[in-house]
Amino acid sequence: MKKALAIDVGGTKIYNAVIDEKGKILTEVEKHSTPKTFDEIKNTFISIIEKYENEVDTIAFSTCGAVNNQNSGIVGSTGNIAKEYPSMRFQELSKKPVFVENDANCAAWAEYKIGASRNSAVSVMITLGTGVGGGIIINGHLLKGQNGAAGEMHFKMSNKKHRKCSCGSWDCFEIYASGTGLKLTAEEMSKNPDITTFDVVEGAAKNNQLMVEILKKWQNDITDGIIGLANLFDPDCVVLSGSMAEFVDTEKIENLVNSTIVTTPVKIKKAQAGNYSGMIGAALLALEAYHG
Amino acid sequence: MKKALAIDVGGTKIYNAVIDEKGKILTEVEKHSTPKTFDEIKNTFISIIEKYENEVDTIAFSTCGAVNNQNSGIVGSTGNIAKEYPSMRFQELSKKPVFVENDANCAAWAEYKIGASRNSAVSVMITLGTGVGGGIIINGHLLKGQNGAAGEMHFKMSNKKHRKCSCGSWDCFEIYASGTGLKLTAEEMSKNPDITTFDVVEGAAKNNQLMVEILKKWQNDITDGIIGLANLFDPDCVVLSGSMAEFVDTEKIENLVNSTIVTTPVKIKKAQAGNYSGMIGAALLALEAYHG
Repeated sequence: MKKALAIDVGGTKIYNAVIDEKGKILTEVEKHSTPKTFDEIKNTFISIIEKYENEVDTIAFSTCGAVNNQNSGIVGSTGNIAKEYPSMRFQELSKKPVFVENDANCAAWAEYKIGASRNSAVSVMITLGTGVGGGIIINGHLLKGQNGAAGEMHFKMSNKKHRKCSCGSWDCFEIYASGTGLKLTAEEMSKNPDITTFDVVEGAAKNNQLMVEILKKWQNDITDGIIGLANLFDPDCVVLSGSMAEFVDTEKIENLVNSTIVTTPVKIKKAQAGNYSGMIGAALLALEAYHG
Repeated sequence: MKKALAIDVGGTKIYNAVIDEKGKILTEVEKHSTPKTFDEIKNTFISIIEKYENEVDTIAFSTCGAVNNQNSGIVGSTGNIAKEYPSMRFQELSKKPVFVENDANCAAWAEYKIGASRNSAVSVMITLGTGVGGGIIINGHLLKGQNGAAGEMHFKMSNKKHRKCSCGSWDCFEIYASGTGLKLTAEEMSKNPDITTFDVVEGAAKNNQLMVEILKKWQNDITDGIIGLANLFDPDCVVLSGSMAEFVDTEKIENLVNSTIVTTPVKIKKAQAGNYSGMIGAALLALEAYHG
């Protein structure tokens, strides 16, 4: 069976593992802190690749940042990683074929191939973490856009310039649906600037009425965003992933969405491909691209 | 050259014309009022088809309502037309192949083939009229979704339940960006419930400061919506069509959008395929489907 060396590159951590065509992780997952400089990041990649290159067929990167339509490099800025990182020439790191894709797209692909959206015609994956990521798959193809930057969950939830988003604009879905968004909603509703998302989920679990209401407001904002996405894409499946996804009630969201949209009914599911879905999706994409 | 009989079906009017593979209209455009009952609508179709059937290769319907992925019939409700209309069996109307597509999708296709988004990799067309329609083309394919209902411009502009939308939900893009939306914005800003969109555009043309501000607010809402669409689809072109499109400043919108999005630069253009773009797009799609 063909194998890929998968490398997941985030702003704080780099993971790697060898993964086969079925999405099975064959080695222990190795973790590294993401170095501060371009050269150190590159050297980390090189040392990982040297260790596994001879036993795999392809190198598969799941990375922060938008990735071009050739799956060879990064388009534009990437947030919380060395400024020069987008200039990385990935193919030069190995003599094996190197494939690069955006981490949210990779995770969406893993859900589509082995997870919650298996065999879906049209699926939207939303990663709810500190920020919000997105990956959209239409008839077996990732939605990439003209230059590979598509799937950004920065559509507005308000035209009142209420919350500044990490992207520099106002009131994007991300700044309501993310963990950061939950904290802001909690601050607004509790009038307590020190409240944490932990306070909210723990308080809600103990049936504290205010915390329940805060969580409900946050979930309603997520629901509103999904309604817009469902009306645009007419998907059969929306997958919620990321660290914050465990706090949403998918059944409630599904009922609300389906009673509101003008398109056709959609399933709302939690991700099933596990913590390493980025690496798994990258490996499956790379193996399909080079050996499919 | 192959020819299609194109029939455009709206809630108030039905148009028809014979159109060739280049999108050229070969006959006079005939207009009919849309009858009230299913049987009368069907008889109107039959009489149009009988007149032209023998001189064309295919029958191409551009219709209100979401059209299935087989391009044979309508999915779900259609707004302002006989309730039973979605049960129409279009292929039974003619011995020639019959092709059906949603009117906004048809208009988007006409822009893509002969209009403002020619040769575009990823384009979004937004029709600004009494309501708002949408047609999205990704790498040469219309975005249809799981059941053909995709492209609905019902994503939210507010999470405050401020304006009720025609779809039954609250604060959709449609109820801000449409002509109806402009009237509501004008009512709110002028405190005059009798103000018309004509008052606004005429007043703005005469430099009445309030009317200028109202038009600007409306245009900013349209811009906010386009920002979300650009971040989701990373399109190279957004086309604005419909009767209200003449009142927007595409250059200003383009500058605002491109200074806000996290994706890559997009052109904002007005439609160029003319008033009969629905029929033209339907004809081009039908001729491609059956004779391409």
